Amino acid sequence: MIKVGIVGATGYAGAEIVRLLLSHPQAEIKWYGSKSYVDQAYADVYKNFFKIVEDLCKEDDLSKMAEEVDVIFTATPQGYLASVISEEILQKAKVIDLSADFRLKDVSVYEKWYGIEHKATQFLEEAVYGLCEINREKIKNTRLLANPGCYTTCSILTAYPLVKEGYIDEKTLIVDAKSGTSGAGRGAKIPNLFCEVNESIKPYGVTTHRHTSEIEEQLGYAAGSDPLTINFTPHLVPMNRGILATEYANLKEVTRPDGTKGLPTEEMIREAYEKYYGNEYFIRILKKGEFPETRFVEGSNFVDIGFTVDERTGRVIAVGAIDNLVKGAAGQAVQNMNLMFGLPENMGLTMMPVFP
Amino acid sequence: MIKVGIVGATGYAGAEIVRLLLSHPQAEIKWYGSKSYVDQAYADVYKNFFKIVEDLCKEDDLSKMAEEVDVIFTATPQGYLASVISEEILQKAKVIDLSADFRLKDVSVYEKWYGIEHKATQFLEEAVYGLCEINREKIKNTRLLANPGCYTTCSILTAYPLVKEGYIDEKTLIVDAKSGTSGAGRGAKIPNLFCEVNESIKPYGVTTHRHTSEIEEQLGYAAGSDPLTINFTPHLVPMNRGILATEYANLKEVTRPDGTKGLPTEEMIREAYEKYYGNEYFIRILKKGEFPETRFVEGSNFVDIGFTVDERTGRVIAVGAIDNLVKGAAGQAVQNMNLMFGLPENMGLTMMPVFP
Amino acid sequence: MIKVGIVGATGYAGAEIVRLLLSHPQAEIKWYGSKSYVDQAYADVYKNFFKIVEDLCKEDDLSKMAEEVDVIFTATPQGYLASVISEEILQKAKVIDLSADFRLKDVSVYEKWYGIEHKATQFLEEAVYGLCEINREKIKNTRLLANPGCYTTCSILTAYPLVKEGYIDEKTLIVDAKSGTSGAGRGAKIPNLFCEVNESIKPYGVTTHRHTSEIEEQLGYAAGSDPLTINFTPHLVPMNRGILATEYANLKEVTRPDGTKGLPTEEMIREAYEKYYGNEYFIRILKKGEFPETRFVEGSNFVDIGFTVDERTGRVIAVGAIDNLVKGAAGQAVQNMNLMFGLPENMGLTMMPVFP
Amino acid sequence: MIKVGIVGATGYAGAEIVRLLLSHPQAEIKWYGSKSYVDQAYADVYKNFFKIVEDLCKEDDLSKMAEEVDVIFTATPQGYLASVISEEILQKAKVIDLSADFRLKDVSVYEKWYGIEHKATQFLEEAVYGLCEINREKIKNTRLLANPGCYTTCSILTAYPLVKEGYIDEKTLIVDAKSGTSGAGRGAKIPNLFCEVNESIKPYGVTTHRHTSEIEEQLGYAAGSDPLTINFTPHLVPMNRGILATEYANLKEVTRPDGTKGLPTEEMIREAYEKYYGNEYFIRILKKGEFPETRFVEGSNFVDIGFTVDERTGRVIAVGAIDNLVKGAAGQAVQNMNLMFGLPENMGLTMMPVFP
Repeated sequence: MIKVGIVGATGYAGAEIVRLLLSHPQAEIKWYGSKSYVDQAYADVYKNFFKIVEDLCKEDDLSKMAEEVDVIFTATPQGYLASVISEEILQKAKVIDLSADFRLKDVSVYEKWYGIEHKATQFLEEAVYGLCEINREKIKNTRLLANPGCYTTCSILTAYPLVKEGYIDEKTLIVDAKSGTSGAGRGAKIPNLFCEVNESIKPYGVTTHRHTSEIEEQLGYAAGSDPLTINFTPHLVPMNRGILATEYANLKEVTRPDGTKGLPTEEMIREAYEKYYGNEYFIRILKKGEFPETRFVEGSNFVDIGFTVDERTGRVIAVGAIDNLVKGAAGQAVQNMNLMFGLPENMGLTMMPVFP
Repeated sequence: MIKVGIVGATGYAGAEIVRLLLSHPQAEIKWYGSKSYVDQAYADVYKNFFKIVEDLCKEDDLSKMAEEVDVIFTATPQGYLASVISEEILQKAKVIDLSADFRLKDVSVYEKWYGIEHKATQFLEEAVYGLCEINREKIKNTRLLANPGCYTTCSILTAYPLVKEGYIDEKTLIVDAKSGTSGAGRGAKIPNLFCEVNESIKPYGVTTHRHTSEIEEQLGYAAGSDPLTINFTPHLVPMNRGILATEYANLKEVTRPDGTKGLPTEEMIREAYEKYYGNEYFIRILKKGEFPETRFVEGSNFVDIGFTVDERTGRVIAVGAIDNLVKGAAGQAVQNMNLMFGLPENMGLTMMPVFP
Repeated sequence: MIKVGIVGATGYAGAEIVRLLLSHPQAEIKWYGSKSYVDQAYADVYKNFFKIVEDLCKEDDLSKMAEEVDVIFTATPQGYLASVISEEILQKAKVIDLSADFRLKDVSVYEKWYGIEHKATQFLEEAVYGLCEINREKIKNTRLLANPGCYTTCSILTAYPLVKEGYIDEKTLIVDAKSGTSGAGRGAKIPNLFCEVNESIKPYGVTTHRHTSEIEEQLGYAAGSDPLTINFTPHLVPMNRGILATEYANLKEVTRPDGTKGLPTEEMIREAYEKYYGNEYFIRILKKGEFPETRFVEGSNFVDIGFTVDERTGRVIAVGAIDNLVKGAAGQAVQNMNLMFGLPENMGLTMMPVFP
Repeated sequence: MIKVGIVGATGYAGAEIVRLLLSHPQAEIKWYGSKSYVDQAYADVYKNFFKIVEDLCKEDDLSKMAEEVDVIFTATPQGYLASVISEEILQKAKVIDLSADFRLKDVSVYEKWYGIEHKATQFLEEAVYGLCEINREKIKNTRLLANPGCYTTCSILTAYPLVKEGYIDEKTLIVDAKSGTSGAGRGAKIPNLFCEVNESIKPYGVTTHRHTSEIEEQLGYAAGSDPLTINFTPHLVPMNRGILATEYANLKEVTRPDGTKGLPTEEMIREAYEKYYGNEYFIRILKKGEFPETRFVEGSNFVDIGFTVDERTGRVIAVGAIDNLVKGAAGQAVQNMNLMFGLPENMGLTMMPVFP
């Protein structure tokens, strides 16, 4: 059994790690870390776990935790892990970080978008970006894993084959994303009150959302280039879970399989998706003419992707959907844990989407 | 492996049976029956099952199905099963009926509340009412199981110890129940449109809801009497899943453990709940002062119950919560299947509640 | 024009007073009082009023306000008004208080249910309870008006004719109420976050909710007796607005119009409702067999009431619905203002319910 | 008083016309037309109007209606009005059509996007496209008004100044729109059931939504060119009301006020919005850095618009929000009626947005 510690177990992402690991046959939670609820019963903070979890919350002490567990999940605000991580800790326990601290390789980009100084740049090189379907082999051997952001997981996976194959003009890529409210966390803030969110939709972080930099860096790798420069616009939707990313890009003239020059066809694009994702358990490429809906992935680790070519405008429109708390956070973290410990990648993650 | 057929697999309750059985280690769905979608891919009707279920929907033919499976779930409108059930079918396959056809022992009560003639009264006697926590032993040996209604499961389990122990004046029992909208089914009806349900709450079936008769009969058995006569009022709540039953009853003077006469105390009532449910995996009696919320059982087979004694009015107020599609339908049906086939009662049903 | 000041204009009830008065032909808001947003533009706090309201928020200073306005609405926490009210203020401006400070005549009841000392008992006698349909004449002449609570407005109006006519056994009255989330106010609290409220229903304040005492006192007056002793159970519903009160009571034997003795008939009860509400603009007694739904009163000052007699149990079930922010708070406050200033009672309050 | 007839008064848009006209000081509804509810009380179909509207629904007979009223609103499916309109009718009553029949000047575009033959092309030329803020003068003199679509109203108004001033490269314009569910109408269809819409977001009509053609034609006029060719992608959001349009376009090099060449600055764009909308009652240009949220226009006829320039990508991002049933349908229709009858443009339309 893998012994697990969770820093920030009382946030929504932390609680979702708990939900998933309680059904995982090879993991056992040994430490429910919390900043605000130390010594309170975890099941008093998340009453869905009443009579299931007996443990009290303990302090968020990474060093002590590393003595007792094999892997630590950190579901914490940006800057926290970088301020406490050490070689000593990493020699004792693997760390899967759900914050952004080790996602960006370029410190100056991190400090620009996040507005905080990075306190542990010495670990940036070894940290592996945990987008399993793309970085699988590197993930298997790391001890410091940067779990991707929720928006970025959905945005990158949806665009990746298009960028990788050179089918789109990268500078035309626009990602219009929509998220359920659990992505905003469990903090007590007026804008997240029921009456403020319900019966409304709004954009936020327009041109400034931090996940932009993460998408740009990763898609730059896919393009074999410097980071891209894109527009990413998130919106808040009155639902608990789910992210939908609607992506637009101009198709680029390529040499087609039959030797002619022209824009990639819908069939070529489908083949690109099949090439990269055809064997992926968690990625479902929808049938022609179908587009994802967040309800069909809710509660599961699936990524649903649909696309079409608009011949009128010469653009491809690709749409991806995930559950932000599962594939966008806790589920992908567990998928990474499975990879890092040599377990079947989907162990404990085969739960069905819950609909309705 | 238990081979399973589902009649009405394309309704919400049917789809929930599918969701649960796909994760059940000892069951295999062999027949996805449907009235409206024959020959269509099941995963086209419920796209959450895309790339998971390959089967097409087949007709709702109970006789043919009985040739191929060990157990048939019927998630169908009232009257359907009674009109097609036969000794021949029952000799080939066990039947777990999610409709009301075999829930009421008294045909005249059935015909009065449901307004239809009962076409298979010869099976009424052998049918077992499948409220697992109360009828466990009988369930193990039946071949025809009447799975309780969603409201009734929640309403009866909440009141049962109070009635059984003689702690309440039964004729004062009032059940004010609230349900999510999935209980209304997947039929295309104006009152169930999003804009009609959202941002509103309404009572319906006031004094006339059919589940009244089921609660009255079962609580009558608990009281060792004729059926009770109670008020049951359901309300429609703008949420997908969940039932909450708020129950009120006057306490009755009893002889207390210390020999004095008086109303049952809160401690006595707690002991009564412990007596009947203390060992039940799926029933969680909340701590003093706490009351259930449907979000904490969503997606799971749990029943949460809280209660208090109001000394000002001499009443006990007990509140129960379930997920209407799980413990209120498909989950309890699978729990019954487990019992009927000698499996551990919670096999395939240990999924955690999903919150948020 | 009536000059108006609002203390607590930045809470939900305060903002609803603003919404209503901006369309009121005889009122002009002169002072937007706030504790947290002093010197900020009111339209920055409530962006629906952008380009409509130019004013800044000012401090919540009752004395200064009284110099400049004719009437002050106090939409503040319990205890506030009692701690600052004075004879001097009341000589300058009428006060309409949306808190509970002057609703209960019996100080000991107030202090017991609210847990705070009452600092202005000298005004309790002259304060008038502002349930317009019942206390209309007294309201016209008061300078200190206690605006009823949201739950109480709905609960009392639904039961009033039944109690007044002596048709029900008062000690059997049970009020099971359901409210939208705006009733919880705009405070930043975890239990009111979108993800905590959405997809769930819960009871709260079971046997202890403060509105109980207010219902008991007022219905006691209707009965011509001491306060009643009832059960009142509120529930939180995932919607912004609306209160539904489902009320149960045993009918009492009376002498019927034809001279026989027996329980009141449905016709007699309808006549009772007509007797008290037949001429009321804001109360709509629904047709036989119909029950209210909150969506049909949303945004308006209407009270919808439906009822039925259950001959099986000898009970009447009456259900009332209001918009908690309108008839349950700001709308009734404006209705009271109209009465206190000799204006037509429905001036500025004839807006239609908004559906869908 | 203007006498009004409504064809399709029992759809959501029709009911919203009713809601608005009941508060309009110069209009009187004489005919509640309906296809499905003839001879039923209108207030039985929309119970929010109980005790307010006494009329029965009458048949949808345009000719008879024209005898009795001054103006007819047609809130009907595409193709209906074109199949029944006649010179005779138009000589008796003005017609305000909420369908698409007379919105597009080019019949071939209509027939391509709508897939139906146009039966009244003779009236296409005289019909006026009723986007009040842009076509005000023409509207005043027409007898046949084509009321714009909900998505189009929001999409066009948001982009109009940018196109008109030549600030954007029109072929790069992308409109990603999100709508509440009332836009789907009151038809009983499974995809619009509460449980199908709630807790989900989905795109639909990707590259094929009919409103695309309307946006393209109107923005072509603004550009002084042929129709544009754009991408328009609508999404369904789990809320009753509201449309949000997020628009992206590459800025085009222009000569700036100071004589330099370069992309338009944020200030220039603000001036453009002020130039076209500075005096418009219903259009609110938000402050720098602010973006619209549908909750702040709900129930009102306002259009909120916010924008920013992204210097990294050289794009402008402009976002508009309306209430789809008001400015997107009934409100704009009434605004058009006011113009056509010489009334103040905002008469009956000054209701405040309802929040929360």
